[in-house]
Amino acid sequence: MTEPAPVFAKGVDHERITEQLRFVLETDKLKRVLRRNTLIDGSRRENAAEHSWQLALAARTFAEYAPKGTDISHVVEMLVLHDIVEIDAGDTFVYDTHESASQPERERAAADRLYALLPGDQNAHTRALWEEFEARETREARFAHAIDRLAPMLANWHTEGGAWVRHRVTRDQVLDKVRIIGEGSRALGAYAAALVEDADRRGYFTRPASRG
Amino acid sequence: MTEPAPVFAKGVDHERITEQLRFVLETDKLKRVLRRNTLIDGSRRENAAEHSWQLALAARTFAEYAPKGTDISHVVEMLVLHDIVEIDAGDTFVYDTHESASQPERERAAADRLYALLPGDQNAHTRALWEEFEARETREARFAHAIDRLAPMLANWHTEGGAWVRHRVTRDQVLDKVRIIGEGSRALGAYAAALVEDADRRGYFTRPASRG
Repeated sequence: MTEPAPVFAKGVDHERITEQLRFVLETDKLKRVLRRNTLIDGSRRENAAEHSWQLALAARTFAEYAPKGTDISHVVEMLVLHDIVEIDAGDTFVYDTHESASQPERERAAADRLYALLPGDQNAHTRALWEEFEARETREARFAHAIDRLAPMLANWHTEGGAWVRHRVTRDQVLDKVRIIGEGSRALGAYAAALVEDADRRGYFTRPASRG
Repeated sequence: MTEPAPVFAKGVDHERITEQLRFVLETDKLKRVLRRNTLIDGSRRENAAEHSWQLALAARTFAEYAPKGTDISHVVEMLVLHDIVEIDAGDTFVYDTHESASQPERERAAADRLYALLPGDQNAHTRALWEEFEARETREARFAHAIDRLAPMLANWHTEGGAWVRHRVTRDQVLDKVRIIGEGSRALGAYAAALVEDADRRGYFTRPASRG
């Protein structure tokens, strides 16, 4: 844990700003959490911080495909925050069933530690936003998940299959994630489905072993 | 320029979503624009995309230090977008007067190309947000600048002077940026001023040559 500088500024609640700085400094570690997909140009693996930035940008760019009345600022707020738990819990590859089984417990413990670095009122608010994202019940949370799932699909398509190829992912596994996109946005779900069909034609997916 | 996949999704305006995807794919390049400061742990240089993410997070965390009535969602929107011009214009080190002289022209040309990848209505809206940020006249733009200036100061303090030391920056040069922070947030300006005094005591700044 990086401790904030021991400085006192006139008119500023020292204890409170120190807690806020401790949180911001700690979240710097998200820049070192590597994801399975690469950048679009394939040059290196993507980290979770720059991924979060791109999701915020994409949510805004694709806002018109969210259900009517969706609060995009709220979506962006969730997307900026949602991956912070990966500082402790690591990135979980959505197609790894072993990793995914322990993910909720690992991420909950991470949320307990990380959001609690903030002053109490901000911890409660931030934690509630993360819980909302995880529960995927509000239209904002569903749209946030749609954006979160679509982004790596774009990266994989543009790198000739990328992580799908490297990790032997099947078309059906990806279509399962397309369903989640469709639940957040009908249009983006339709686009993702078409993208997966195209990727399949190009041979980017591993064929399930024949049962014959 | 990475061209979006040639796929057609039922019920989705192909031309429009293709333009939006071209923009999102192009902005992936911001992940490869390196800044002068490093991560807080000093392990590598920071890129402009992960920097933008952290600014969005910091704006939210420090929201209470913005002038009353500041729309933080609007601040976050500007911060998510403001560095995209660096894809073409590169990162300009704020203490490099030679680079800074040509910065407005380079960034304007970049904005002309990059935001124009979006459909016309979105180009106009995004461009207006960027112009607002650059003009630094609204309280939202001023607070966004305060956050943008504070973040690298934290990184430099936590790496024993970091880019200040490497690029022989003086205390007075940094105090000039502290002034900009104070114009966006009195409290964050006071904190930054105290941080710079502390950094000065620790010898992180280059002394101006004596005129004796």
